[in-house]
Amino acid sequence: MNEFELIARLTKHLPTNPTVVAGAGDDCAVLDLGAPETLILFKTDAVVEGIHFTRETPPEKIGRKALARCLSDIAAMAGTPTAALVTIALPKDFDAEFVAGIYDGLNALAGKYGVAIVGGETTTNPERILISIALLGTVPRGKQVMRSGAKAGDAIFVTGELGGSLAGRHLDFEPRLAEARWLAEHFKIHALMDLSDGLAGDLRHIVKASKVGAVLLKTALPIARAAKLRAKEADSAKPAALAALTDGEDFELLFAIASKDAVKLLDGWKKKFPGLKLSCIGKIVAGEGIELRDKNGSQKLNANGYVHFA
Amino acid sequence: MNEFELIARLTKHLPTNPTVVAGAGDDCAVLDLGAPETLILFKTDAVVEGIHFTRETPPEKIGRKALARCLSDIAAMAGTPTAALVTIALPKDFDAEFVAGIYDGLNALAGKYGVAIVGGETTTNPERILISIALLGTVPRGKQVMRSGAKAGDAIFVTGELGGSLAGRHLDFEPRLAEARWLAEHFKIHALMDLSDGLAGDLRHIVKASKVGAVLLKTALPIARAAKLRAKEADSAKPAALAALTDGEDFELLFAIASKDAVKLLDGWKKKFPGLKLSCIGKIVAGEGIELRDKNGSQKLNANGYVHFA
Repeated sequence: MNEFELIARLTKHLPTNPTVVAGAGDDCAVLDLGAPETLILFKTDAVVEGIHFTRETPPEKIGRKALARCLSDIAAMAGTPTAALVTIALPKDFDAEFVAGIYDGLNALAGKYGVAIVGGETTTNPERILISIALLGTVPRGKQVMRSGAKAGDAIFVTGELGGSLAGRHLDFEPRLAEARWLAEHFKIHALMDLSDGLAGDLRHIVKASKVGAVLLKTALPIARAAKLRAKEADSAKPAALAALTDGEDFELLFAIASKDAVKLLDGWKKKFPGLKLSCIGKIVAGEGIELRDKNGSQKLNANGYVHFA
Repeated sequence: MNEFELIARLTKHLPTNPTVVAGAGDDCAVLDLGAPETLILFKTDAVVEGIHFTRETPPEKIGRKALARCLSDIAAMAGTPTAALVTIALPKDFDAEFVAGIYDGLNALAGKYGVAIVGGETTTNPERILISIALLGTVPRGKQVMRSGAKAGDAIFVTGELGGSLAGRHLDFEPRLAEARWLAEHFKIHALMDLSDGLAGDLRHIVKASKVGAVLLKTALPIARAAKLRAKEADSAKPAALAALTDGEDFELLFAIASKDAVKLLDGWKKKFPGLKLSCIGKIVAGEGIELRDKNGSQKLNANGYVHFA
């Protein structure tokens, strides 16, 4: 049983109650806790030494990343982050300066986005540092954007550039909070999520939740310079387009919107966010699964996000 | 720098915002997210293999304990738990049945207390299982009970019996949710917390936050049978009263209330909760620190909760 099969089994029969607007399965849980105008967003995310960072990573960047990942999930619902709790599990011989550095990076990013750090705990994990962030946010009632509303005919958009995040951007990315709120305020966004596992895998969540399929245009993929460089320099590296499809930790927004709104969207975006690329990379279609098209034809993307290029 | 010194340093300059009613330093954070009648309680708590449980612990009890600890913190604010996220960090060779058992125990307790499990994540921790629970609750506006309101002259009460929890009760304790809500509804409770680190250490949090001192009566301590048995059977074990003062994981309620309300409280309690002991164990005094009195005189409890018995 792999991680995904385990999660599917564990989340099948979860206890619920009338406060739950949306439980497991989207970027955040959505709760109605009685505020007349807002719903509550609730999310946790953990980073682990040796997997998401190393002892060589500057501690400020570790703390920053731990919180930024969670902020990106609030963005993925078109919400606003409010307050976080920080759990940090440490070996007994922890370096206090290193831990203080983690908090410095985390606090700086929290301050930038108006997030209160309202506590948490330290506990012991003898072999490695683990940081788990629990984050609350709010979203105007009815304005939360789920993964499940994509419709056949929708255009698929992605912000920024994809691939090669491990070259450094996974430690420095900006959560797309302002961008997502602007999108939800000015357009009817049918489905929205943030890219954490790679476009091919993440888009699968949208098409599954929405019971549709998707066609991606290979030439339309906005490939990051780091992915192109890496593909050129190392013979063993992935082709750049494959990196854009399958590298994780892009933390860009992926969304579906009615095709008729696409031109107005692109015009408005250029004025509002001139420094950030917005690319139409394909369309939602009836059916299921994801197809990748280029001038040589089309091929299916498989469940792991991996595709064999001809 | 030990854990407590580190926490003191890390929590000195935390970012905040206007939603924060109470941040780090009490049993839960308290937030105002716009609900007219309620405030939001927010808490995380982690359990780690080899520290809070072992591979020999039945997995259902591990999951139960992970959630019950957090529920006890909601009780400690006189609140009602609402929704939880479950983070479980696993070695790569995890036993799926064991993990499913953890969730079974957790879900059963959640169901019992009306708590929705609204998601979470699995991640990798190669050497041991770590479970972190993030929990939301609500409390009627103004009815949250903090640690900081104890006044000189107050009577100090504790529910249940103390000490010897490691003999088994740390896996089976009931969070005192109904009891705490009843207390807050019917009495003016000045300060309230749950006992997780042991009475001597935890009472210190109340006297520090309230800027007062306390006197405990040794003969009034409700000592658990498990602590008495252990003291008798093993020469090396702690004296039973010391176990009641310093053993962790009792998860009983500790609170301060005006002395004039004490008789009415005891009468009402006996009718409402006939199966659960409620003991007056001492009083709040002006000054600082904690004193333990018996027929031979009095002695100070030190910062670690340890006391040398004469």
